[in-house]
Amino acid sequence: MKNLLINLVEKNKKYTQDGKLASYIPALLKANSEDLGLCVYDIKNNEEYWAGESDVKFTIQSISKVVSLIIALNDNGRENVFKKVNVEPTGMGFNSIVNLEIRNQDRPYNPMINAGAIVTTSLIFGENEEHKLQRILNFLRRATNNPTIDINREIYESEKATGDRNRSLAYFMKSSNILEGNVEEVLDLYFKQCSIEATAKDLARFSAVIANDGIAPWNDEVLVSREICRIVKTIMVTCGMYDASGEFAVHVGVPAKSGVGGGIIATVPRRFGIGIYGPALDSKGNSIGGIHILKDLSEELELSIF
Amino acid sequence: MKNLLINLVEKNKKYTQDGKLASYIPALLKANSEDLGLCVYDIKNNEEYWAGESDVKFTIQSISKVVSLIIALNDNGRENVFKKVNVEPTGMGFNSIVNLEIRNQDRPYNPMINAGAIVTTSLIFGENEEHKLQRILNFLRRATNNPTIDINREIYESEKATGDRNRSLAYFMKSSNILEGNVEEVLDLYFKQCSIEATAKDLARFSAVIANDGIAPWNDEVLVSREICRIVKTIMVTCGMYDASGEFAVHVGVPAKSGVGGGIIATVPRRFGIGIYGPALDSKGNSIGGIHILKDLSEELELSIF
Amino acid sequence: MKNLLINLVEKNKKYTQDGKLASYIPALLKANSEDLGLCVYDIKNNEEYWAGESDVKFTIQSISKVVSLIIALNDNGRENVFKKVNVEPTGMGFNSIVNLEIRNQDRPYNPMINAGAIVTTSLIFGENEEHKLQRILNFLRRATNNPTIDINREIYESEKATGDRNRSLAYFMKSSNILEGNVEEVLDLYFKQCSIEATAKDLARFSAVIANDGIAPWNDEVLVSREICRIVKTIMVTCGMYDASGEFAVHVGVPAKSGVGGGIIATVPRRFGIGIYGPALDSKGNSIGGIHILKDLSEELELSIF
Amino acid sequence: MKNLLINLVEKNKKYTQDGKLASYIPALLKANSEDLGLCVYDIKNNEEYWAGESDVKFTIQSISKVVSLIIALNDNGRENVFKKVNVEPTGMGFNSIVNLEIRNQDRPYNPMINAGAIVTTSLIFGENEEHKLQRILNFLRRATNNPTIDINREIYESEKATGDRNRSLAYFMKSSNILEGNVEEVLDLYFKQCSIEATAKDLARFSAVIANDGIAPWNDEVLVSREICRIVKTIMVTCGMYDASGEFAVHVGVPAKSGVGGGIIATVPRRFGIGIYGPALDSKGNSIGGIHILKDLSEELELSIF
Repeated sequence: MKNLLINLVEKNKKYTQDGKLASYIPALLKANSEDLGLCVYDIKNNEEYWAGESDVKFTIQSISKVVSLIIALNDNGRENVFKKVNVEPTGMGFNSIVNLEIRNQDRPYNPMINAGAIVTTSLIFGENEEHKLQRILNFLRRATNNPTIDINREIYESEKATGDRNRSLAYFMKSSNILEGNVEEVLDLYFKQCSIEATAKDLARFSAVIANDGIAPWNDEVLVSREICRIVKTIMVTCGMYDASGEFAVHVGVPAKSGVGGGIIATVPRRFGIGIYGPALDSKGNSIGGIHILKDLSEELELSIF
Repeated sequence: MKNLLINLVEKNKKYTQDGKLASYIPALLKANSEDLGLCVYDIKNNEEYWAGESDVKFTIQSISKVVSLIIALNDNGRENVFKKVNVEPTGMGFNSIVNLEIRNQDRPYNPMINAGAIVTTSLIFGENEEHKLQRILNFLRRATNNPTIDINREIYESEKATGDRNRSLAYFMKSSNILEGNVEEVLDLYFKQCSIEATAKDLARFSAVIANDGIAPWNDEVLVSREICRIVKTIMVTCGMYDASGEFAVHVGVPAKSGVGGGIIATVPRRFGIGIYGPALDSKGNSIGGIHILKDLSEELELSIF
Repeated sequence: MKNLLINLVEKNKKYTQDGKLASYIPALLKANSEDLGLCVYDIKNNEEYWAGESDVKFTIQSISKVVSLIIALNDNGRENVFKKVNVEPTGMGFNSIVNLEIRNQDRPYNPMINAGAIVTTSLIFGENEEHKLQRILNFLRRATNNPTIDINREIYESEKATGDRNRSLAYFMKSSNILEGNVEEVLDLYFKQCSIEATAKDLARFSAVIANDGIAPWNDEVLVSREICRIVKTIMVTCGMYDASGEFAVHVGVPAKSGVGGGIIATVPRRFGIGIYGPALDSKGNSIGGIHILKDLSEELELSIF
Repeated sequence: MKNLLINLVEKNKKYTQDGKLASYIPALLKANSEDLGLCVYDIKNNEEYWAGESDVKFTIQSISKVVSLIIALNDNGRENVFKKVNVEPTGMGFNSIVNLEIRNQDRPYNPMINAGAIVTTSLIFGENEEHKLQRILNFLRRATNNPTIDINREIYESEKATGDRNRSLAYFMKSSNILEGNVEEVLDLYFKQCSIEATAKDLARFSAVIANDGIAPWNDEVLVSREICRIVKTIMVTCGMYDASGEFAVHVGVPAKSGVGGGIIATVPRRFGIGIYGPALDSKGNSIGGIHILKDLSEELELSIF
């Protein structure tokens, strides 16, 4: 396995040339666009394998949408969450406001686009914003088996300073009564969760928890219910890779979620948790090297669930 | 003329039953939905004729879009303004965000929809927000020949508290670099200009200035350049009555602008300035009694410019 | 006047370099892209003035939308026509199907876009398609004072062979019960009316009839009612120049209609009928040289109705 | 198992009251809206279990999209097919034309919406239309183990007579060079494949073939390659149940495809092929009783692949 991973990183490194760093958050431009790292957590024998830049820290960005969905489902129950956000894929981009106006004013299409994730974040329980953030961090620390997980202040400030499109989405939803509470506070928490830092290894362990029906394989702690895991994996398949989700399902065929920081999590039910880091992105906003690695890995190990 | 106006108010009063007060700004619901008033300023003989509730104060709302367009054109010149906001009619509603995303991200369709008016407001010169507001008020005081024109604080507070859709539009434009400066300050000025109070008589005088190529007929003061008047009247014809502008042009055929407070200004070049108040609105957001009065008046006096 | 026109053609000829022939109907590519011709019919003294290629024949294309609107209004009355087609400008292109689906399924936005013109064509009375075509041709022969007006068979065949987007629009409207009757027959008549040939001089006379409230100035024959003329001129102002109608209204300010064959008609109420030919088009589909000439002419002679 | 199915039909029969027969094809209104039938083909022991109206014939409608996709992939290879039609879910309805115009003019979103299926049908090999139809029928006869499978002429005529929305989609794609060949011929074949008749038992066997990686479990004949089966199942999950695909994935979690004739196929990899008939449809166009049965069945037998 170790050799396989090393070969895959080597083989697919060239694609990083064709990608671009995310530019809409200025601080993300500081990443090294040639980085490409990979970690696979093997659930059956509790082993971790890695290659490339698997220890480089980056912000998880949209991968945090999986986290806030899990916590919102846990806090509110499935019915209450899906009253506020639907689970349908959308043919539009992740920050589109068109569909909100044209077809679906009562709730965003799904929790993997920005509008939907702002809603799930708003549903997280907590006495105040700080408390909610601590609950997010605590969950992730246990789910990555890494107690040092925290937010990157510089990136958070950059997100906040340039987050006007998300502000627009949030105020649109506020005006349509989709979003309740204080808009600026919800956005602040949203920007913070996007700015959480992790490595490919951290993400591999988080993926392993989801792939293992919510049980941390290293200590058998139940972190997420089996039903929530199933729901989250389903939504990752249909909506996880932005508007390239359908193609990813055909070519790779496992529940996955990417972030514009270059991260991808991919979960192979009861077999593997996979974490990837490669900040050079394709035109859809997915790690270009990461997607290629996952295609090869899926073929090599027959990972597709279909 | 006086008798004609009295007859028209009487004849069309019944339509106020079919309309509804604007509800999205709670304070607007305090208006009397049966009110219907009308004032015609005859430019040639400098006479004012009126009927119905022509002395009731109401907020001018979208009619302020004409004011901010005039001042922005005066401050920046035509070229600079139309670099920031186009002059094309749109088939969408006044607060639509769809067209911004789909077709025209570089500038809003025209200065008579909310997005476009937020832009023209942002272009008004002034040392600070207060200074800009004073310039707007001073202009309107002279153009209505009424030095007591001011904003209605209660309505302004209500607009500000419920203006999330406009916030969404403004942040969208900020994120697309259409709008510059401090978004909340621009919005605050925008909410204030919408909350300016006037009567049908005030609006008749303001209309007369525009109809008279920018010269106040009562004292021959030049308040607006002839070219700006021509541009403003053109845009009022193509875009002034929300997405009923085309139908209004066919049925009435004069440059006009309505507001959800129930006001309408209509300008008959070199003949009349018309101000109307009737807070019961049709489904497009135009004063339902006012539209009926203008149709009759246009037929009776052959007002159409076409 | 004659000298003015010669100067304007000369001055604006250079812009034909920046335009392109319409390419979506292959036969239109045979035109000479440098041609630029102009004719002004002076209603008051019944004189014609011209310059440039004012005798070159070309197909009137979308200018025929004015013709079918006039005949449909005459045959059916205003109420019946506007039940089937609205009179609102649209921010979308002339062949857009989006607005039909999203907002306005019951009728097309206006009679100056393809969908709307297909509807007005379908409303023309006649025992069969041939009879309807003869009625269109007879009307235009009288309105241009040219009994040789006819269709260009080659262009008609080309339109028909490549008219799939119009077929799509028509079948969409058929499926929504907007369009009645045999779709292919309606389309055939539509393609034929688009293929009617005329010169700038012919169009100047046709414009003069509309500008003169429907009365042919050369023999005082009443060809169109005054009310229909008024309606048609209104719709030309708000919707006549595709999605550049608003800008054209600001810069020129007269009722006008263009066609992708390079023609423009412009009517100056009770003063002039103007016909233009210049097949090099700008990005909106309007004659690029023609638009420049009309801007100059409007300034020179103060033509704007606003 | 037999008893389970009988109970599920009985339990969920009441929901047929809340649904409606498809009305846009008049002949479909002749179905009995209370019918509800179910058949499960157990791959491991080659047994069929059924309950309710599992022998009633109905037209497969959109389920034929799976058939034409399989044959098109087989004839042209994956790369060539996906050059012409994408595999992304769309948030719009099955007959939407909006997305074609706004975002994706080069190819339809996926092969499970009408536009995409018209394209895959156009890609089926054959000397002429009749030959292509015979290839479709022959494939289905073998895949359902029923040599009498044929089209319902009455429904086919009804589809053809009322298929104007599909004509609109097809001509739109023709005008954008997405669709090649003779539009009317492609549509005719498309209407015919939609009009193929089958029973719930037939569909259960067809589903079993796909669930069994393309091998007919009753005689081990290879009818579809394993790779094509995987692709088809993937697309069924992300796009198979119209714009309720996401919700269906969360609640049921197996590759499925519905038709407005009331049929549903559902495939449980290497375990079951399921065929359902229930012509009363929910607002999305899916069999209302069928969806409820599948939810129960998925819970009872733990069918979700996630």
